[in-house]
Amino acid sequence: MQKQPLMQLKFYICSMKLKKPTLLLDKQKCLNNISKMKAKADKHGLTFRPHFKTHQSAQVGEWFKVMGIHKIAVSSVSMAQYFADHNWRDITIAFPLNIAEIEDIDKLASKIKINVLIENTEAIGFLDQHIHNELGLFIKLDAGYHRTGVFIEDGDKILSLIREIKTKSRLHFMGFIIHNGHSYHASGPDDVLQIHNQSLAKISLLKRSLLQEGSTAIFSIGDTPAMSLTENFDQIDEIRPGNFVFYDLMQAQLGACKFDDIAVALACPVVAKHDSRKEIVIYGGAIHLSKEYILDKQSNKIFGRIAELTADGWNDPCDASYIKSVSQEHGIIKATPDFYTKIKVGDFIVALPVHSCLTVDAMREMYTFDHQKIKTLNS
Amino acid sequence: MQKQPLMQLKFYICSMKLKKPTLLLDKQKCLNNISKMKAKADKHGLTFRPHFKTHQSAQVGEWFKVMGIHKIAVSSVSMAQYFADHNWRDITIAFPLNIAEIEDIDKLASKIKINVLIENTEAIGFLDQHIHNELGLFIKLDAGYHRTGVFIEDGDKILSLIREIKTKSRLHFMGFIIHNGHSYHASGPDDVLQIHNQSLAKISLLKRSLLQEGSTAIFSIGDTPAMSLTENFDQIDEIRPGNFVFYDLMQAQLGACKFDDIAVALACPVVAKHDSRKEIVIYGGAIHLSKEYILDKQSNKIFGRIAELTADGWNDPCDASYIKSVSQEHGIIKATPDFYTKIKVGDFIVALPVHSCLTVDAMREMYTFDHQKIKTLNS
Repeated sequence: MQKQPLMQLKFYICSMKLKKPTLLLDKQKCLNNISKMKAKADKHGLTFRPHFKTHQSAQVGEWFKVMGIHKIAVSSVSMAQYFADHNWRDITIAFPLNIAEIEDIDKLASKIKINVLIENTEAIGFLDQHIHNELGLFIKLDAGYHRTGVFIEDGDKILSLIREIKTKSRLHFMGFIIHNGHSYHASGPDDVLQIHNQSLAKISLLKRSLLQEGSTAIFSIGDTPAMSLTENFDQIDEIRPGNFVFYDLMQAQLGACKFDDIAVALACPVVAKHDSRKEIVIYGGAIHLSKEYILDKQSNKIFGRIAELTADGWNDPCDASYIKSVSQEHGIIKATPDFYTKIKVGDFIVALPVHSCLTVDAMREMYTFDHQKIKTLNS
Repeated sequence: MQKQPLMQLKFYICSMKLKKPTLLLDKQKCLNNISKMKAKADKHGLTFRPHFKTHQSAQVGEWFKVMGIHKIAVSSVSMAQYFADHNWRDITIAFPLNIAEIEDIDKLASKIKINVLIENTEAIGFLDQHIHNELGLFIKLDAGYHRTGVFIEDGDKILSLIREIKTKSRLHFMGFIIHNGHSYHASGPDDVLQIHNQSLAKISLLKRSLLQEGSTAIFSIGDTPAMSLTENFDQIDEIRPGNFVFYDLMQAQLGACKFDDIAVALACPVVAKHDSRKEIVIYGGAIHLSKEYILDKQSNKIFGRIAELTADGWNDPCDASYIKSVSQEHGIIKATPDFYTKIKVGDFIVALPVHSCLTVDAMREMYTFDHQKIKTLNS
């Protein structure tokens, strides 16, 4: 049976009474993404501690819970508080310790299992002085991303941090956190895997230099590109991907997902058309999609790609049409002649986001196809 | 008397009990920006219709009201509803007509003076059929930005739109809206002025071709760079700048403001330091500042510059330190040796934003130096 994308789109939009940019969530794709990653973790005997910074939603969190997932990572103390309020009992705050929030961290640690990240002795001393509850400490390692963390090659410093932690009664050395964020800038799947494998080799070297001091250490690794592509988890105990829950164009470009795995898309009203340059103006801009872009092979900046709704979700990007620029509320679609002809003012189009973490954070709520409103931390 | 920036900063931060990224608003700078632009409008006999998309705040709106400003522009129907609820009685929705929001527009027009933008006959016909209240129509013109609007050179089309509007009893032809957004990409003040003057020349030509049909038309022009720099308002009746209320690094780079005019800055906790590369990690990233950047002369991407608080606000960016990258919650400062030495983990730094419109939209609330919380549309 031939699909009639525009008709379905209109049916959906009308039945939801959409009026302005609205983030749609394909729950089935999202559930598939979660169960695939869970299966991979199970297959390799890994602890699966998903990072919840992408969805930031208690409701989406419940979908993980029913699959038997009970440990999570978050990127802020506020997010830890939110998920603790929604009955999560084992949370790693996967962000460098912010000592200005020490009282909030202590309060959280009085109720649930909290792990924090440290990367220097000052932080250990500060925690020892100010924390009254048991706290797990992960040492943040830098295996090549160079955003933050102790150089993974610096065995002496790492050893001294472990020894320092072990002198503190309420602080418990948990292990090591590594996030190879440079995989987001990889040239493709092979490059992602190379970054990952180099990281594993460095972990292997570190393990040897730690001897008995590191024997119980958990090695936790995190990036969605590598977690999606690799089957090699040598030396790894725990994985912490986040973006995989929704994926996005950046992950598709890296080869970490197919277009069909992308679980969120922004429905946008068409507000103007420009024949001479085959451009379509949508209500949907930087405050909805974010200013994140990828480059295509011709070095065009892509701020989103256009999909069409079908009877059961949306299609892959329908053609080479893309969002070429965004200002505060406007998006400009560079359209193919076919797409340009098909779309008229008043229609809604569906834009796949470049970076779903930022789009979800900007939109702060999502709607499933059964019109359920999915709230987030900041709704 | 020598200023002691860090001490003042600490005093301020402690007295506010800041814990995480917080947007500070220097009310005095903001008032100066408003009164300067108001004075310029008065001097040239222009209607001053500030665009409120930058601050999106009823409280900041009151500061305009006390200066005698009673007409505004907004960028969405939601924003128009919000300001109508806060007693604004003359609002131009300066965004291409979104027909999905027609009922909301009609309802607004039943209460206050509403102007909308149109750029084709279909929109006029649609409004005529669906609107039950009096509505002002501006024709959106494209004088070179090429985002949207009727080409300003297309006198025939413009004339036919005016004639079409004039056949509709509830629709009132108000005039023309021009936004030279390409001035944001200018190479400097001279380039901004050239874009502006070219636009004025095109307006002049259009006026001649419109003859009697356009005799009452208001010519409304909008961009902050040109409105800040020019004294030439030949042919112009109304100005609609928005960003000038806070300014930002982009405007400073264009020469449209001085650093000292920037009225908002993001206070961010320092969470890590990296000696080997003189980088400082702050809690403050893309979800706070946005991913907007400017390029410096060496083509480095700048996502923010660092200022220090003083007794009565903050200094100009203290030195060449800048935010070189942002991820979701992290910002990475490339620091000068001096700045690197001065700052320690646990301090707060103050980041001047690249694009204040996006930073304010992301943060959704601001704090003045007397600890007043300034709410916005989405607070």
